[in-house]
Amino acid sequence: MVKNFLSPGLDQASSDKIVDILLSCLAHEEEGSLVLKHAHWNVAGPSFIGVHEMLDPEVDSVRNMADETAERIATLGGAAEGGADFILSRRNWKPFELKGRQDTQDYLKALVDYYAEFIVAERNAITQLDDLDVISSNIIQDHVQELEHFNWFMNSHLIK
Amino acid sequence: MVKNFLSPGLDQASSDKIVDILLSCLAHEEEGSLVLKHAHWNVAGPSFIGVHEMLDPEVDSVRNMADETAERIATLGGAAEGGADFILSRRNWKPFELKGRQDTQDYLKALVDYYAEFIVAERNAITQLDDLDVISSNIIQDHVQELEHFNWFMNSHLIK
Amino acid sequence: MVKNFLSPGLDQASSDKIVDILLSCLAHEEEGSLVLKHAHWNVAGPSFIGVHEMLDPEVDSVRNMADETAERIATLGGAAEGGADFILSRRNWKPFELKGRQDTQDYLKALVDYYAEFIVAERNAITQLDDLDVISSNIIQDHVQELEHFNWFMNSHLIK
Amino acid sequence: MVKNFLSPGLDQASSDKIVDILLSCLAHEEEGSLVLKHAHWNVAGPSFIGVHEMLDPEVDSVRNMADETAERIATLGGAAEGGADFILSRRNWKPFELKGRQDTQDYLKALVDYYAEFIVAERNAITQLDDLDVISSNIIQDHVQELEHFNWFMNSHLIK
Amino acid sequence: MVKNFLSPGLDQASSDKIVDILLSCLAHEEEGSLVLKHAHWNVAGPSFIGVHEMLDPEVDSVRNMADETAERIATLGGAAEGGADFILSRRNWKPFELKGRQDTQDYLKALVDYYAEFIVAERNAITQLDDLDVISSNIIQDHVQELEHFNWFMNSHLIK
Amino acid sequence: MVKNFLSPGLDQASSDKIVDILLSCLAHEEEGSLVLKHAHWNVAGPSFIGVHEMLDPEVDSVRNMADETAERIATLGGAAEGGADFILSRRNWKPFELKGRQDTQDYLKALVDYYAEFIVAERNAITQLDDLDVISSNIIQDHVQELEHFNWFMNSHLIK
Amino acid sequence: MVKNFLSPGLDQASSDKIVDILLSCLAHEEEGSLVLKHAHWNVAGPSFIGVHEMLDPEVDSVRNMADETAERIATLGGAAEGGADFILSRRNWKPFELKGRQDTQDYLKALVDYYAEFIVAERNAITQLDDLDVISSNIIQDHVQELEHFNWFMNSHLIK
Amino acid sequence: MVKNFLSPGLDQASSDKIVDILLSCLAHEEEGSLVLKHAHWNVAGPSFIGVHEMLDPEVDSVRNMADETAERIATLGGAAEGGADFILSRRNWKPFELKGRQDTQDYLKALVDYYAEFIVAERNAITQLDDLDVISSNIIQDHVQELEHFNWFMNSHLIK
Amino acid sequence: MVKNFLSPGLDQASSDKIVDILLSCLAHEEEGSLVLKHAHWNVAGPSFIGVHEMLDPEVDSVRNMADETAERIATLGGAAEGGADFILSRRNWKPFELKGRQDTQDYLKALVDYYAEFIVAERNAITQLDDLDVISSNIIQDHVQELEHFNWFMNSHLIK
Amino acid sequence: MVKNFLSPGLDQASSDKIVDILLSCLAHEEEGSLVLKHAHWNVAGPSFIGVHEMLDPEVDSVRNMADETAERIATLGGAAEGGADFILSRRNWKPFELKGRQDTQDYLKALVDYYAEFIVAERNAITQLDDLDVISSNIIQDHVQELEHFNWFMNSHLIK
Amino acid sequence: MVKNFLSPGLDQASSDKIVDILLSCLAHEEEGSLVLKHAHWNVAGPSFIGVHEMLDPEVDSVRNMADETAERIATLGGAAEGGADFILSRRNWKPFELKGRQDTQDYLKALVDYYAEFIVAERNAITQLDDLDVISSNIIQDHVQELEHFNWFMNSHLIK
Amino acid sequence: MVKNFLSPGLDQASSDKIVDILLSCLAHEEEGSLVLKHAHWNVAGPSFIGVHEMLDPEVDSVRNMADETAERIATLGGAAEGGADFILSRRNWKPFELKGRQDTQDYLKALVDYYAEFIVAERNAITQLDDLDVISSNIIQDHVQELEHFNWFMNSHLIK
Repeated sequence: MVKNFLSPGLDQASSDKIVDILLSCLAHEEEGSLVLKHAHWNVAGPSFIGVHEMLDPEVDSVRNMADETAERIATLGGAAEGGADFILSRRNWKPFELKGRQDTQDYLKALVDYYAEFIVAERNAITQLDDLDVISSNIIQDHVQELEHFNWFMNSHLIK
Repeated sequence: MVKNFLSPGLDQASSDKIVDILLSCLAHEEEGSLVLKHAHWNVAGPSFIGVHEMLDPEVDSVRNMADETAERIATLGGAAEGGADFILSRRNWKPFELKGRQDTQDYLKALVDYYAEFIVAERNAITQLDDLDVISSNIIQDHVQELEHFNWFMNSHLIK
Repeated sequence: MVKNFLSPGLDQASSDKIVDILLSCLAHEEEGSLVLKHAHWNVAGPSFIGVHEMLDPEVDSVRNMADETAERIATLGGAAEGGADFILSRRNWKPFELKGRQDTQDYLKALVDYYAEFIVAERNAITQLDDLDVISSNIIQDHVQELEHFNWFMNSHLIK
Repeated sequence: MVKNFLSPGLDQASSDKIVDILLSCLAHEEEGSLVLKHAHWNVAGPSFIGVHEMLDPEVDSVRNMADETAERIATLGGAAEGGADFILSRRNWKPFELKGRQDTQDYLKALVDYYAEFIVAERNAITQLDDLDVISSNIIQDHVQELEHFNWFMNSHLIK
Repeated sequence: MVKNFLSPGLDQASSDKIVDILLSCLAHEEEGSLVLKHAHWNVAGPSFIGVHEMLDPEVDSVRNMADETAERIATLGGAAEGGADFILSRRNWKPFELKGRQDTQDYLKALVDYYAEFIVAERNAITQLDDLDVISSNIIQDHVQELEHFNWFMNSHLIK
Repeated sequence: MVKNFLSPGLDQASSDKIVDILLSCLAHEEEGSLVLKHAHWNVAGPSFIGVHEMLDPEVDSVRNMADETAERIATLGGAAEGGADFILSRRNWKPFELKGRQDTQDYLKALVDYYAEFIVAERNAITQLDDLDVISSNIIQDHVQELEHFNWFMNSHLIK
Repeated sequence: MVKNFLSPGLDQASSDKIVDILLSCLAHEEEGSLVLKHAHWNVAGPSFIGVHEMLDPEVDSVRNMADETAERIATLGGAAEGGADFILSRRNWKPFELKGRQDTQDYLKALVDYYAEFIVAERNAITQLDDLDVISSNIIQDHVQELEHFNWFMNSHLIK
Repeated sequence: MVKNFLSPGLDQASSDKIVDILLSCLAHEEEGSLVLKHAHWNVAGPSFIGVHEMLDPEVDSVRNMADETAERIATLGGAAEGGADFILSRRNWKPFELKGRQDTQDYLKALVDYYAEFIVAERNAITQLDDLDVISSNIIQDHVQELEHFNWFMNSHLIK
Repeated sequence: MVKNFLSPGLDQASSDKIVDILLSCLAHEEEGSLVLKHAHWNVAGPSFIGVHEMLDPEVDSVRNMADETAERIATLGGAAEGGADFILSRRNWKPFELKGRQDTQDYLKALVDYYAEFIVAERNAITQLDDLDVISSNIIQDHVQELEHFNWFMNSHLIK
Repeated sequence: MVKNFLSPGLDQASSDKIVDILLSCLAHEEEGSLVLKHAHWNVAGPSFIGVHEMLDPEVDSVRNMADETAERIATLGGAAEGGADFILSRRNWKPFELKGRQDTQDYLKALVDYYAEFIVAERNAITQLDDLDVISSNIIQDHVQELEHFNWFMNSHLIK
Repeated sequence: MVKNFLSPGLDQASSDKIVDILLSCLAHEEEGSLVLKHAHWNVAGPSFIGVHEMLDPEVDSVRNMADETAERIATLGGAAEGGADFILSRRNWKPFELKGRQDTQDYLKALVDYYAEFIVAERNAITQLDDLDVISSNIIQDHVQELEHFNWFMNSHLIK
Repeated sequence: MVKNFLSPGLDQASSDKIVDILLSCLAHEEEGSLVLKHAHWNVAGPSFIGVHEMLDPEVDSVRNMADETAERIATLGGAAEGGADFILSRRNWKPFELKGRQDTQDYLKALVDYYAEFIVAERNAITQLDDLDVISSNIIQDHVQELEHFNWFMNSHLIK
């Protein structure tokens, strides 16, 4: 592996800690986009078309989060990772287990549960990053804002 | 799970076989896009910017392949799958193992090896699908055309 | 009527057969777009907006199919036809009979029945065209791919 | 069939009369777009390309007229109709009978004849609608403006 | 306040009457856009996403109506007004009172009631303006056409 | 000169009267666009850039009015005219006489005077056309709406 | 009213406090956009066109602020409010009282006064939100940045 | 009239000569665009649509020439002029006299004659400007290039 | 010359055969685009503008065919060729010999003859490629579809 | 010099300190864009085109930073400065001294050194601004995020 | 062949000389675009993607030069020529002889040699045209500017 | 420093002279864009917004001039320079000294003075370049045309 560099104004120890926090966010975000696409393909029922189409821009949005997180890791001189094995190696949250063609309400409920852990994990990352690197923290704050916004969209379908 | 339907003019047995073939393609394509993104983040060396930027539209391209394959599965009344666990459950090819920041040439060589298996697998799928469903075969043929075209791009960097 | 020409490499007898097959596809596609527009105007119920909007791009899509089929007929030196009388003269399938403002589910069910005959008819055309003219067959194959994809969209609303 | 509603400020009797007038316009406009497409496919002769291309935006234009008329019917709580059978059931004008590949001049002459009845019918609808519903009248006035404009285009080819 | 001017061809008395009629339309339209945005934020239930998204372009549409009405007032040498106090000072219709997160059907029912008064008021304005200034009347006619069209969209969700 | 045609539903005498009214509008509109361009080139003073730029889209707008009027004349089977001699032959209004580089206020005052006659002339045309051809009247009504709107813009600079 | 939900990682008491702060911002922003539009319609004098056009994108900008604030409230499980009555119920600042057609300088002075209170109120909201929810604080920070930037634009006209 | 300025590096005498030459070009270009529009409205015959559409972008092109020439005059501190009277006062060429609806060939022949004088006049201006101001000469050279190009288009219709 | 590679799943002998077939298509397509451009520059007569403009998008289309064919050759590890000498070395068809400014009908007749050989050659290539490489065959099939479509356009001008 | 104003909620002393910090950032950013353009023009060697093109969007990016910083200074009532003398008067960092056409690697190394000081200076500004004005700090934080991202791009070319 | 015309202001002898000079430029430019495309397809090595992509817009650029030159010939009443035989008949320069897949550096060196002759030939044409027709000279001057600019791009890769 | 090359058809001595002339233009243009941006940030008074916005596209325009000049230098094998020190080293004109927030008229007057020297310097460069390299001269001629055009805009504000 090629020799890494340090971003100006950051020491090696801080850099390593920031990269480690961001790698966990990255794994979560990579999986998040796969999970949303999975739901996009399998929802069914009378509200099909609205929910099917609502999920696709959120897939793009979470993919962009992963890309931003990974490029921040690279910016700090670290090495980002992509792939199924990497996701599993970092997964310390409950996997998404709903499978097959199911009613939109069932998928939205399962996604709301998944997002609860996802959002809390990214909020924890913000707390840790605030003391280490405000730029990295800013990036994850933007991700949380978008994830919480979509959480409202999903919750709004479930209320009765 | 909700009751599935059959696409007009196809019987249950053919449908099941087609869906099974397409699920393997899907797993390969989902992983392919993660692997290309991984390379996009980690390439380094004097040709960095050209290769870094060349990989990104191919990521989009392979993501679109996965989406087309998954939607074809749904079109046939089957259930597509997305996620890291699904990729691993279907993986019967050599995983991509290069990690960390490496020279562009090293990543391109590793990707060329990965693509060799990828293209051959999709060509085999075409052969099987030709007798079952010409529409599904057409979809995978388009994927192979694009994968082979990108294979030329990568090979062109390696020749000396 | 002006004298027709033959497309290079095709004899008169084959040309006539191909044109006749394509004229039936054309009549079906012209009617299909009128039927989808009819549904677009008359759907009602809690899922109104999603289904109303989902139908419009499919109208465009089926209109483009009719245009491609008609221009292929012209390309072969034949004469395409447009109009209500032409549709009736070629109609050997069950007409679409649902009328007035009805629930989205009722319209989708009626359209799924209409599409079943529509898709099977175009798949039969493909079988006949494969031996006569691969280019014409390719055109209808693309139409079937899109029709089946929309069939999934409609079926996904009906499952419970 | 679901229960209809009335648009605010209009009584049932007026509404029924307006809808009936608009349904005749709708049938004429639906047929008009099929007839123009038919000419688009079959014109021939030294001025082919100009006339072939001139007809296509007019097809779009007349299709939009039909859509506007149909949505106005729905807006008034009525039920619009689409389809070949509906066109025939309302047809009280001379059908378009030119068929096959013919010189552009022949098609333009036949279309000018068709437009003469078409425009007069819509002008009559305006007269009747003026006392019933100014909004509906406005819509048909816009259609006449465009139809007469295209009538000029066609006549300009015929003059010698 | 600066001295006003008169639009060419209109006397002061007519101008004052037209401006007064238009000011009431303006107040209604300003409030209408606030009310639609309010509904956009608070709808909930299984049809959430479709209705939430359907409302936003209508907000833009009604905002543009207010802008056109206000600029017509200014064109006539009058002074348009914007603001919450102005809306209340002109309000002679039933305020929109549904609050908090409610089912889409409830919001659509409340909006249909609000639109009934809104449309009738603008239709009355047209009647009064027809004798005073055809240009001003044309502007409000276009507003009614759009309001009634959206009324159909909302009613279509409520029918069973 | 080639033989003219009549638009369906209009007799020769009415047609001739409408065309004559529209020819006067056309001459006024052709000159109007030249006059606005003249002002665009010659304004000067501290508000130069805002007024210089405000005039250009109005030039386009008045040019489009002339084009619409001329094409309506052609639509009715008449012959539109363009050119300096034609403008002079129809001019029964006070010519625009301000010349050379002058302060923006001076040009705006002169244009407001020119517009007063321009708007009144087009309003008179509307009155005459209302009984002859509602479509032609609609076209000039739209022109007046835009001319009056721009009149407000110009007046707003002059008030103190 | 439907049952609300809590955003992951926030308790009920904090959520209520954040929503209350944001509701005040929302009322201010809703009114702000009405006030700016009011000025847009009524400014007059030699600098009319520049100021008239400068205000419109700021209207859009403040409307987007209100939309972002309202959607953040919904994201937190709260209920946003829109409408004239809501603005008055929350108004604890000096209302904008300039009316009628006035010189641009007078409107800009009145707007600068209005903005002074507006900006200070949003800056206070930031201080309160910083301890409750960094994401909500970020949103209001972006609003302040834009409001202050426009404040510079307005002040720059007033200096002599 | 306000006091004029001189462009840096040019004396008063040269400036006056350049402006005088450019004013003649301007008058020719202003008339040229009116003449082309006149032809655009009145051409007729079997090639109507192609010639009608070919003329419109040339109208825009010649209008832009007039605008460039006029702004060059202003740039030199001179005063450009627009209007029918100005055109007549500078006209030392044969006016365009074809009127009414005529065959496309007749209009093209008349335009070719008009262009012959037009192009020669602008070529003479270039010769004179070359010694006075290379920048002004470049502007007219670009105009000649476009006029000659369009001259080819027109001549190509006339050859047999 | 650098060492070539083989595309995955294809042996050297097949690759060589495919590349040889594609090189002949490439030479024909390169020449085809030059020939069409030649006609684009030299057509004349009353239908000039329509035919002149119809040819240009076909030039682009045939240029894209050459590019696709050449990149397929490179994709297979072969070496594409471009240039006048290459075209001549592969030319086994009748050259296009019409020269100078001629009537549109004459150029279209000469092009129809050229296309007859062109289309038959590409149809033969399809037959040969079907057994060697379905992906390469697909590419040429798309080229034939477009060439035959344009053949209809050209034939439509010639019929009387 | 005209009298300055204070931004609402900030006192004079804080304002002065913030402006002074921002002026140093501004000088650095103005110079940064000149330096990047200088490199854009002078890089050479086998990776020329990639590096040449990579630098240009970064020039735009740094120019936008300077514009944002300067407009923030103006927003606070201060006076921004632009120009070579201003840059020199504020320069307390090592000037960029590489000149002439050099290998891409040499320019990238020199730019990485320049960026090290640039980023550390802006990070120091953030620290100082955090206590004075969070809005100004946010602006510089966004600049650092982009500068560090580009630093990764440059470093990635240098690693071996 | 149809009778040619003369462009206004040019005599037959000058016209013939200009056309002859331009025909040589045309042949060079037609070949130039084929040669660049050839290189685009065959470059290889670590800088592949940058050079491959850099060549394509230059192909478009040189194609446009050929089109401009040919249309200038037609504008002068001459007959342009396209095709492989024409290129060979005018070729008085060294043909481009590098073939097959080669390193980017080798192709760039060969192209730099080809451009040396190409640029000198077009510079000679300018010298000859300056006395005959300044408009034609301007066209070739623009071509030289672009060719020399691209020559810099190519040279920049070769320097070490 | 790497060895430079010569552009085809130019000798070393001429090249050196051209580059030296262009370097002075470059320094002036680089400074010009900084000076215009400085004015953009600091203008104030009742015409603020119009002048503030008028300056920004001129900044872009002058930046593009610098880029064109620098790339011409590189095209000739010379080395362009960017940076504050370079500007100062070449400055033989009066620096721009107006500072701080001032009335628009003051800034425009100072800019008009600056432009007087700027335009004369570039006109002198044209005279010198005409004998050395017509292509370089063309580039500077285009710059002068734009600079003089903007000079008119600025002068137009100052006249009374």
